[in-house]
Amino acid sequence: MSEKPGKLGISFSFGAAGGEGGTSKLESSIGELGPSIAEAVEWVKKNASRDESGFGWYNLPDKDPSDVLKAAEWLRGYDSIIHVGIGGSALGNLMLHQALLPFYFNERPAGGAPRFYLADNPDPEKARAIWQRVKGSRAALVGVSKSGATAETMSQFLWFRSKMAAESGGSVDGDALVITDPKGGVFRSFANDTKCRSLEIPPSVGGRYSVLTPCGLVTASALGADIKALLKGAADMRDFLASAAGVEANPALFLAATHLFHERGGRPMTVLMPYANRLETFAEWFAQLWGESVGKEGLGTTPVRALGAIDQHSQVQLYTAGPDDKLYTLINVRNRAEEIELSTVSDSSLESLSYLSGRKLGVMLGFEAQSTAAALVKAGRPVVWIELDKIDAHTVGALVFFYEYVTAITGRLLGINPFDQPGVEQGKRYTYGLMGRDGFGKDAGEAGQYFERIKKLGVTA
Amino acid sequence: MSEKPGKLGISFSFGAAGGEGGTSKLESSIGELGPSIAEAVEWVKKNASRDESGFGWYNLPDKDPSDVLKAAEWLRGYDSIIHVGIGGSALGNLMLHQALLPFYFNERPAGGAPRFYLADNPDPEKARAIWQRVKGSRAALVGVSKSGATAETMSQFLWFRSKMAAESGGSVDGDALVITDPKGGVFRSFANDTKCRSLEIPPSVGGRYSVLTPCGLVTASALGADIKALLKGAADMRDFLASAAGVEANPALFLAATHLFHERGGRPMTVLMPYANRLETFAEWFAQLWGESVGKEGLGTTPVRALGAIDQHSQVQLYTAGPDDKLYTLINVRNRAEEIELSTVSDSSLESLSYLSGRKLGVMLGFEAQSTAAALVKAGRPVVWIELDKIDAHTVGALVFFYEYVTAITGRLLGINPFDQPGVEQGKRYTYGLMGRDGFGKDAGEAGQYFERIKKLGVTA
Repeated sequence: MSEKPGKLGISFSFGAAGGEGGTSKLESSIGELGPSIAEAVEWVKKNASRDESGFGWYNLPDKDPSDVLKAAEWLRGYDSIIHVGIGGSALGNLMLHQALLPFYFNERPAGGAPRFYLADNPDPEKARAIWQRVKGSRAALVGVSKSGATAETMSQFLWFRSKMAAESGGSVDGDALVITDPKGGVFRSFANDTKCRSLEIPPSVGGRYSVLTPCGLVTASALGADIKALLKGAADMRDFLASAAGVEANPALFLAATHLFHERGGRPMTVLMPYANRLETFAEWFAQLWGESVGKEGLGTTPVRALGAIDQHSQVQLYTAGPDDKLYTLINVRNRAEEIELSTVSDSSLESLSYLSGRKLGVMLGFEAQSTAAALVKAGRPVVWIELDKIDAHTVGALVFFYEYVTAITGRLLGINPFDQPGVEQGKRYTYGLMGRDGFGKDAGEAGQYFERIKKLGVTA
Repeated sequence: MSEKPGKLGISFSFGAAGGEGGTSKLESSIGELGPSIAEAVEWVKKNASRDESGFGWYNLPDKDPSDVLKAAEWLRGYDSIIHVGIGGSALGNLMLHQALLPFYFNERPAGGAPRFYLADNPDPEKARAIWQRVKGSRAALVGVSKSGATAETMSQFLWFRSKMAAESGGSVDGDALVITDPKGGVFRSFANDTKCRSLEIPPSVGGRYSVLTPCGLVTASALGADIKALLKGAADMRDFLASAAGVEANPALFLAATHLFHERGGRPMTVLMPYANRLETFAEWFAQLWGESVGKEGLGTTPVRALGAIDQHSQVQLYTAGPDDKLYTLINVRNRAEEIELSTVSDSSLESLSYLSGRKLGVMLGFEAQSTAAALVKAGRPVVWIELDKIDAHTVGALVFFYEYVTAITGRLLGINPFDQPGVEQGKRYTYGLMGRDGFGKDAGEAGQYFERIKKLGVTA
């Protein structure tokens, strides 16, 4: 059930497109999509070569990471890092840390690296819990927002800054790093004013495509991830996709077309289910990239984040026996960084478990992935199977670029703009209004009216 | 925008059912469902009173927790707890710990309680990372599986047991606690044989309804949660629901009917989005309860787990501007255990942030919840709004019972059995087959055939 991996160590399989005749239907749909796909490929290529707004992610693998490595070296001089950011300014960090750093519980970074705390949600309980752990230590404050206007991020950045300043009895802007737009925005003015450290998110790169900018790279590098290998993986994937002739030799185009086929065929959800804890937040990162890019103009499938084998005990009942309304992508890992061999089961009360004697835990996890895939196929559900030779910086960089490319192409095929997010503005205006910000009084009124509608029918317990 | 909370401190609002005329359509649909709802209520009541298989959760609030408290006291004598379990034997624990214990990063339990490690996924990297942290300390091993047959749990239980035994140089069964069926199964035989400690999951309670059995209660209690208040909250919610006259006065029946209305109306997803980090895994726990209970016979909506405000920067673009295919439930919290007041913004470069001066972070988070709800209503999406007076053991117990009841009633209204999970058996048999377990050879062959189908169309990178 396996084949040799290529240079990138990733194989993609698309042979189960739902039911008996599904695959040939998918193939003929891909044939019809041919010209649109060719147009989408050219669209990305041409705009990326001009570094047009939104397309900057395509060129990130070529950027010299010296400034990132220097900032990371500086960060390693601290005991703790408070990273303030949300959405695209947080998920990439979580994803890289989990995938590339050899610890799980956020409490003991390897090799004396700083402790890392992500202040993403503006929940006062979380923010205060972070401060409880950080106070009294030498702490660096990293603020990430392209616009410098994100209320959740700016409010927490200001609060941590004031707590740090109160503790030190003076300015702590020398302990701050802001990652933001090179020219505009509040964070940029702040950096200019305070002379604090700063790094740039290129103007042509949107938040959810920013993991390979300083936004995702700096803290990962500070904690020990090999970001050169990460960028090399992204570059190698880009080269591979650029040279793959035809849709059937190009897994990104194949996957984009597969998404379109299933969305149009009445499957409104796409499940990403890696079988490795280290990729748990990769699915979360993908969910943001996907949902915010393709969810517009009444189109777009909903990303569903899952984790194997855990969700076999939670979601697989629904996946195999509920409605046939999802495309499933399972990611398996061929060689795991650790393996565990079980000893012989000798207690007589455990005799029925003797099939576990001498078995390997990681091998079992791979069998579970195959079993779930097979059960889904048996139930007529469409399955895409991705197999990684191993999880390392090069492979993760390749996967990041792969999914960014798939997302951009799918958006173009749908006829929407995969680089904007007009649908989040309304909620932001309402919040400004409710916060009493000047100029948003009308929004506060409108928010109140819509909210009252919900409240019309209520029960108090 | 607020009303007085009642005895349980929870209010439920259903006034926005999607679009202009949505709410009156929902109300007339509820009218038509009247007799089916009455039948479903009777069905739960009658079967619960007989403690029929599957219905045991209804009676759990009445169980005397003395045995749980005794085991928790014993656990508090250890430095570390390794809890081995998956699905229903893990998610309830995560949920209770996050909601009720005052720490976030899994590294410093309050008041000298033991460190807690959950070995849920059989990923060798995770299991080994746990052992790295536990070895050398006085560790208790808690194994949870109703059947005692769950491969992921039994394999890890055996591995940790062997590591602990190798370290101590003798039997460590005195440091083990198994939580399992009172009569049948491998864990029960093991407990009888080794005389290790054991507690019971009542035979009438299924895994995903087991959070109020020792399965969820013991470790939460050991780490400091008030499980008596938790059980009291569940009992109070049960009494409230039993005495609420008519669907419109009974939020559980109203929500079940709302789910049915939207599933039949072409909305295949249900989003649960609490605005509080402490409820993040509550949405995860709900996703298992819901997906595995209602996802069968081609029916059932897909649970989508979200967290506010984080997912405003990830999923809300899709929620407001993508397809109208989801029911949204937002949970807000009126009084948060911590609040943060921002100081005055004085830097001139930060002038545009002056609207944050003196504002409270938790209040802002509540405004964000209202804003998202209002933006969804404006976009014609159906929204259910739940507001908790506060998050404490009593409220969480009430919410647990509430969602268990909603799930059971919804299943009955759909005409399926909300207490079984036949769809997970196929994958288990395939795994046994691939592992070489006696008697599953035919399954291994079948798994291979289905898996080969996926592999037929492949690209290697």
